[in-house]
Amino acid sequence: MAVVNKQTIVVRTDLGMGDGKLAAQVAHASLKAYERADDSVAEDWKRSGATKVVVAAGSEDELIELEREARAANLPHALVRDAGRTQVESGTATALGVGPAPAPEVDAVTGDLKLL
Amino acid sequence: MAVVNKQTIVVRTDLGMGDGKLAAQVAHASLKAYERADDSVAEDWKRSGATKVVVAAGSEDELIELEREARAANLPHALVRDAGRTQVESGTATALGVGPAPAPEVDAVTGDLKLL
Repeated sequence: MAVVNKQTIVVRTDLGMGDGKLAAQVAHASLKAYERADDSVAEDWKRSGATKVVVAAGSEDELIELEREARAANLPHALVRDAGRTQVESGTATALGVGPAPAPEVDAVTGDLKLL
Repeated sequence: MAVVNKQTIVVRTDLGMGDGKLAAQVAHASLKAYERADDSVAEDWKRSGATKVVVAAGSEDELIELEREARAANLPHALVRDAGRTQVESGTATALGVGPAPAPEVDAVTGDLKLL
């Protein structure tokens, strides 16, 4: 069976970001993580619909711990820190993109989190 | 003065999409439009923080009209149609990414829309 690649974006829901701000942080994390993926994986992922799943984290500590796990698993990932011009303080970690990578590997890091 | 590049993502708010679904559509539109931008513009945009602004549209007609305007203005753009596995019917236009491109050119198409 073909490997299915996916990307999961973890975004903090404890910051009170508005919908547009939150979506922009998700898009930042998605693009940055995508650019760190292997080319062949990234191309396959896009050809098969570029599956993106958005899940929630409740604190900066949780996001940083997930980043550590993604790094330990050798998955392409990107932590977004906001420039802080609006809504949150500068340097606040807001979102983490994990993948594109094989779905079971991504799920091993993010699979326990709730869908947003 | 240096040209500032930006990307605006227009997303429909009339579909009742949940926050995660909406954010995923925004990320799809962002990535697809980014890949259609000139390399030099895209690189400059990323170096300067990859500014993304998310705004709201109220109908499919409005999104399609904005796509027409982006095309007429020769701006990189991408309309996302959902595969329809969850929440919306297959083929529904959900979001439109415009840019990265010089901010005044993007704003000429999307500048009248409300921030999400």
